[in-house]
Amino acid sequence: MQDSPVLALAKDLISRPSVTPLDCGCQELMSERLKAIGFDIESMVFEDTTNFWARRGSDGPLFCFAGHTDVVPAGPSEAWHTSPFEPTIINGYLHGRGAADMKGSLAAMIVATERFVVDFPKHKGSISFLITSDEEGPFINGTTRVVDTLMARDEIIDMCLVGEPSSTHSIGDVVKVGRRGSLTGDLVVKGIQGHVAYPHLAKNPVHDAAPALAELAASHWDNGNEFFPPTSFQIANIEAGTGASNVIPGELKVQFNFRYSTELTDKEIVARVHSMLDAHGLDYDLTWTYNGQPFLTHDGEFRNAVSSAISDVTKTPPELLTTGGTSDGRFIAKMGTQVVELGPVNATIHKVNECVKVSDLEQLCDMYYQLLKRLFS
Amino acid sequence: MQDSPVLALAKDLISRPSVTPLDCGCQELMSERLKAIGFDIESMVFEDTTNFWARRGSDGPLFCFAGHTDVVPAGPSEAWHTSPFEPTIINGYLHGRGAADMKGSLAAMIVATERFVVDFPKHKGSISFLITSDEEGPFINGTTRVVDTLMARDEIIDMCLVGEPSSTHSIGDVVKVGRRGSLTGDLVVKGIQGHVAYPHLAKNPVHDAAPALAELAASHWDNGNEFFPPTSFQIANIEAGTGASNVIPGELKVQFNFRYSTELTDKEIVARVHSMLDAHGLDYDLTWTYNGQPFLTHDGEFRNAVSSAISDVTKTPPELLTTGGTSDGRFIAKMGTQVVELGPVNATIHKVNECVKVSDLEQLCDMYYQLLKRLFS
Repeated sequence: MQDSPVLALAKDLISRPSVTPLDCGCQELMSERLKAIGFDIESMVFEDTTNFWARRGSDGPLFCFAGHTDVVPAGPSEAWHTSPFEPTIINGYLHGRGAADMKGSLAAMIVATERFVVDFPKHKGSISFLITSDEEGPFINGTTRVVDTLMARDEIIDMCLVGEPSSTHSIGDVVKVGRRGSLTGDLVVKGIQGHVAYPHLAKNPVHDAAPALAELAASHWDNGNEFFPPTSFQIANIEAGTGASNVIPGELKVQFNFRYSTELTDKEIVARVHSMLDAHGLDYDLTWTYNGQPFLTHDGEFRNAVSSAISDVTKTPPELLTTGGTSDGRFIAKMGTQVVELGPVNATIHKVNECVKVSDLEQLCDMYYQLLKRLFS
Repeated sequence: MQDSPVLALAKDLISRPSVTPLDCGCQELMSERLKAIGFDIESMVFEDTTNFWARRGSDGPLFCFAGHTDVVPAGPSEAWHTSPFEPTIINGYLHGRGAADMKGSLAAMIVATERFVVDFPKHKGSISFLITSDEEGPFINGTTRVVDTLMARDEIIDMCLVGEPSSTHSIGDVVKVGRRGSLTGDLVVKGIQGHVAYPHLAKNPVHDAAPALAELAASHWDNGNEFFPPTSFQIANIEAGTGASNVIPGELKVQFNFRYSTELTDKEIVARVHSMLDAHGLDYDLTWTYNGQPFLTHDGEFRNAVSSAISDVTKTPPELLTTGGTSDGRFIAKMGTQVVELGPVNATIHKVNECVKVSDLEQLCDMYYQLLKRLFS
């Protein structure tokens, strides 16, 4: 039996060992297919990262399929049942690194778009692809830089579907419609080192900081909202001391992380933390790492179209969630774009024996096709 | 010029590299000298540690010179101006490992006793020596075991002078008349590890412990007394976290130390800490290390004799303090003994280029002689 177009393309992509930031020709393969159906292709290589932007049509609204050709390392290949970069089907499942995250999605996007363009060559709006090779890596030269380029020329994506593996138990059971923001603080509280026998000559930063940490831990940050749980503060790391039991430490290091809802901004959080630390009279340095703003795609035409496209295929509307880790969706959302994530079941991603149900890929392709049809036919 | 008896003996002792628990014949040298003037010598070797007990007389009261023949390691000998185990005089200072801590004191004790016995062969009371070779080490097989042996046969030391380098600026300016107690707690607060994105599935031990640590740090333990500052609690080490910013730690480790006055007992401290931790509902393990009870030699005949003996030599009474680290005095004090510490200036102890002023050793010998005279002549 010959492989279906989706399966054939997925296999072709998986056979290329494109560990971040490598692309191994995946994007050229995708670009050629899109060029053949009337897309304008724009390659955007930044440093070690390969990206491309493809667009068909010049009218609004602008819809985008976003995704990445890079994969996480396979890890010890002897731990795999199959060779990680030799796509293999076992009991109806396609095995290989990237099968679920997210070369299967990429194949489904391409084939869905091909079908749609054949069926509706003069579709409304514009269809685009934003594909990077560093989503699994440092995310410096990938989606963020493409987004910067687009924004600089005022080319704004209105609606975006990221092909991240959002499904939990069955294909299309979950669509991610937002993500919490993530903000990390590295706090150094300064004291004066000394001998425990002479505490009056020292200043213990752990003692100074303890009431402030207790207050931070007990703080109520917001109530969350319909789509987000309340903002959460967690101390991830804390360290002070020389190891000796008779030395008062000279400084205390604390690393904490906020996962925050759309009810708060990073600026508000930063201001509140500084004000609490200042109120305790601490002598401190605090460095912030901004890992991504929260975003939420509200109820509306696009979200409804995504839900309906899934129901068209599975007869069951998806659950709309904002849980889980981060994705490149956060970088696209900052354009003001409505972003959702819809892709395969995520049970095996980043693990050995990563796999995806072959029939799920066909259904995913159908969902993507139905979405295009609902948006632009 | 020939070396004085004190200097000659100090040199002989320093030339023996008796790094803990080695003795290198120091004690045999001392024992021979004491035997020659009528002391009964009792060697007490426990495991790797050499000790001896020497006594002259059978009447009470029983006075004891206590000290150690072991020294801390010399460290990198290239950092020394002189070879650490080749006693050398430079500008009136005797250089060498142990010169101040405390082979100089040992020489002064022996020579002072020799003089005293010559001058007062039929002295009152009893004079003894309790000498160990593990004061600088784990203090398991040294003074504690000799004290246990003496207590088992009801041979109780009434008054003891430990030759630790108590002086700060000039010889005899400070006598230690007690030491604080030291008690270390190793606390493990248990939580449940998890992802910061899913705080409801985890339990952050740093958050749980912060209010308890704040309370411990802010607690008033006692007011101290005339000779002791208030009891001090210090967190010496704290640690939690995997290093990753997105993981809630599974446990928190805290090590703290109490330096406590004679106003509190270790039992009272332990009870108060447990009661505070329990009140915060923490799930924890707490292991205690008892480093030594506090002791204080009150105003009285012995303390006055020591002060007067110093004034006899320097014309200035000493300051009576309880500051600083621990010594073997704590193990002797538990017999009910009145303990003081009087020895050389401690500026260079445990450092490279350890040294003692030669004239200080002569003065120290005179002080020890005057003390014996005031007690027993």
